[in-house]
Amino acid sequence: MLEQLKNEVLAANLALPEHQLVTFTWGNVSAVCREQGVVIIKPSGVEYDMMTADDMVVVDLETGTVVEGKKKPSSDTATHLALYRRFPGIGGIVHTHSRHATIWSQAGLDLPAWGTTQADYFYGAVPCTRLMHDAEIAQDYELQTGNVIIETFEQRDLDPLQIPAVLVHSHGPFAWGKDAADAVHNAVVLEECAYMGLFSRQLAPQLPDMQQTLLDKHYLRKHGKNAYYGQ
Amino acid sequence: MLEQLKNEVLAANLALPEHQLVTFTWGNVSAVCREQGVVIIKPSGVEYDMMTADDMVVVDLETGTVVEGKKKPSSDTATHLALYRRFPGIGGIVHTHSRHATIWSQAGLDLPAWGTTQADYFYGAVPCTRLMHDAEIAQDYELQTGNVIIETFEQRDLDPLQIPAVLVHSHGPFAWGKDAADAVHNAVVLEECAYMGLFSRQLAPQLPDMQQTLLDKHYLRKHGKNAYYGQ
Amino acid sequence: MLEQLKNEVLAANLALPEHQLVTFTWGNVSAVCREQGVVIIKPSGVEYDMMTADDMVVVDLETGTVVEGKKKPSSDTATHLALYRRFPGIGGIVHTHSRHATIWSQAGLDLPAWGTTQADYFYGAVPCTRLMHDAEIAQDYELQTGNVIIETFEQRDLDPLQIPAVLVHSHGPFAWGKDAADAVHNAVVLEECAYMGLFSRQLAPQLPDMQQTLLDKHYLRKHGKNAYYGQ
Amino acid sequence: MLEQLKNEVLAANLALPEHQLVTFTWGNVSAVCREQGVVIIKPSGVEYDMMTADDMVVVDLETGTVVEGKKKPSSDTATHLALYRRFPGIGGIVHTHSRHATIWSQAGLDLPAWGTTQADYFYGAVPCTRLMHDAEIAQDYELQTGNVIIETFEQRDLDPLQIPAVLVHSHGPFAWGKDAADAVHNAVVLEECAYMGLFSRQLAPQLPDMQQTLLDKHYLRKHGKNAYYGQ
Repeated sequence: MLEQLKNEVLAANLALPEHQLVTFTWGNVSAVCREQGVVIIKPSGVEYDMMTADDMVVVDLETGTVVEGKKKPSSDTATHLALYRRFPGIGGIVHTHSRHATIWSQAGLDLPAWGTTQADYFYGAVPCTRLMHDAEIAQDYELQTGNVIIETFEQRDLDPLQIPAVLVHSHGPFAWGKDAADAVHNAVVLEECAYMGLFSRQLAPQLPDMQQTLLDKHYLRKHGKNAYYGQ
Repeated sequence: MLEQLKNEVLAANLALPEHQLVTFTWGNVSAVCREQGVVIIKPSGVEYDMMTADDMVVVDLETGTVVEGKKKPSSDTATHLALYRRFPGIGGIVHTHSRHATIWSQAGLDLPAWGTTQADYFYGAVPCTRLMHDAEIAQDYELQTGNVIIETFEQRDLDPLQIPAVLVHSHGPFAWGKDAADAVHNAVVLEECAYMGLFSRQLAPQLPDMQQTLLDKHYLRKHGKNAYYGQ
Repeated sequence: MLEQLKNEVLAANLALPEHQLVTFTWGNVSAVCREQGVVIIKPSGVEYDMMTADDMVVVDLETGTVVEGKKKPSSDTATHLALYRRFPGIGGIVHTHSRHATIWSQAGLDLPAWGTTQADYFYGAVPCTRLMHDAEIAQDYELQTGNVIIETFEQRDLDPLQIPAVLVHSHGPFAWGKDAADAVHNAVVLEECAYMGLFSRQLAPQLPDMQQTLLDKHYLRKHGKNAYYGQ
Repeated sequence: MLEQLKNEVLAANLALPEHQLVTFTWGNVSAVCREQGVVIIKPSGVEYDMMTADDMVVVDLETGTVVEGKKKPSSDTATHLALYRRFPGIGGIVHTHSRHATIWSQAGLDLPAWGTTQADYFYGAVPCTRLMHDAEIAQDYELQTGNVIIETFEQRDLDPLQIPAVLVHSHGPFAWGKDAADAVHNAVVLEECAYMGLFSRQLAPQLPDMQQTLLDKHYLRKHGKNAYYGQ
């Protein structure tokens, strides 16, 4: 079971350069096994074309202790764990510095829902977190990064299954999904929407959000019990 | 006859990722056989590298009923059918979320004719549809999308053979042509013009339309009885 | 002699898609043989991956009459011929609709010399032609396109060997050089400078021209009797 | 020893087109051997796909005299030598005209630290040099280019090991590192940050620098005695 999950996590990590979401080692994907209470995550700073399934690191979901694997887990592991613990419906998480999602993160702006491309995957704007406090940066930074993401979703009453990504202020995106592959899929969509949003705003600086009815239509024709997209 | 058309529709669908017009399954191409009163279209949500000619779905031009094929047709089928019924001169239709045409769609702006690249294929601006009414979105959405495209061409007195594309507001482009391959060709041109228009406007925010005489010259040297471009 | 030149013209035409300067058949390269008084040019509207050296068309430099070849020459042939006749130092010409050079053409703006990348190849700004008069468009359009390019260089007292390209208003770039390969080389440089100029201007809207001394230094370290770049 | 270094310099030069940092021959990488007092650098104007390790030129660190090699060294050699002499901690240098770093150079602007991507590699903004004086351009231009870089770092009290790149005004970037490969790595990061900075500023024209605490956190988790990133 864990072996299969390791292969899925490896494949999802390798999908990042294929989708041009990462430069060098700037990204990491994980998956959770809730039955065993462990998370499988990319090792820290290892190049993609060198990685094997055996390099994937198994850590305890609660404590972050390495359970299996010879390498150090991604330096962002504590962020992943915080999200898995608070968002019980998600199975995989990806972090990248993909160009256009990062541009919105650096600007400190939410990515509004301006078209059906976004509405097909995100039930509204993708939020940007607040600036972190100095104390949060100084102590347990990666854990606090997870906490500020959680705070963003809770204060705005957002459902992480309906908005499967976030922009971390001055940093970059995290995306998630039902498994590691789905998380990468959402990260690709986010990057595409971030690109299109950037230049839609250039053409129409005061662009209002898309119509709520159109957002509902597109999100709900692909999600939920009345979905009719796909086979 | 239908077998050959299925192969053409498959080839046209596969041309979309080759021309970098689609991400994942975000696009669909169809062709019409007016003799048999049927349309052949891509199945819904099937990945491009998995598709075969047998996956193409044959639907009735008038009713949309599946006549042949085991898969569900594209969720946008009703839009395609509406266009085929009202625009008798077209043989193929393509819908994509190609980045720059979608940017203009999201901004809700017509793409003006600003140069000979556009004039070689489009006899003027590519129009953007109006926002759809809530009732149109709620009921028969895909059919109504077709209707709002038709309304745009009729109210502005545009010839769909001379302006073989449209920008659907808050959504993305549809393009068409004499057959499926020609529709894809026009979708590529539209994307190219949408890119160049975006940044031409950045350099010259008050850019007027190109000269009518130059538009006439370029469009008509490639189209109509006095054309002299090509072999 | 002409056979070798045909191969050079073919190779230069094939270099256009390699350098991503063209979409479909939107470009053409020619070379002149001044001894024989002929120009060899790409046929009109033929796809790049189908072209052979035998498809290249030989036309008379003065009259444009086809001397050899079964296909029709490029529809822009008259523009090429006009430039060869008035600019005796050039051996090859290329026309493309490359994205960023075309963006400046559509905006109707000269591309200023803003850095050493441009100064290494162009001894100053790349000029944009004036709008053409209706009569010029209506009659002998392609010849008049050549004439308006020539007028631009003559009125501004520019040396076509020192500024080996032009932006045709509402259309796109022509570039030239000592032979067909050199013309393509200059077209690549122009496209690169056009990209960088677009966004340099975004960062610094009032950007002055680069220093004349720096322009002199870079242009002259690569050109003329005191050049010291290269082997 | 020098043979191995030649191979490293060759490999680093070939990495430039792989990372899409150069067009044609517009880039050069060097490495220094401080024990032998020599620098190994790319030959001037030689195409990347033709280059062999034997083409690398060995020059004296102090005088620039060619010690070994049949080709002329890069025309920018004097700039490299000046930096090696004044920055004793660096082992490799790269110069490119990569698009977005050059855009900031042409605009004459520092690239601010606006996110953790930059903070992971650069301990603050990447500075842009002042305009060079006419006398500096006229006499020993390439040496003076090195001197103006050094002046920039000294006047602003910057540590070249903590800010391993510079933007030369109206020209383009130089980057460096502990060896040739590391210099190329930093050049790739710079280009990525330059792209993202350009459009972050578009979204938020008055964007303040990132928080100092976050800059500290990211830079210091990868550099110095308390680093904890990687294996």
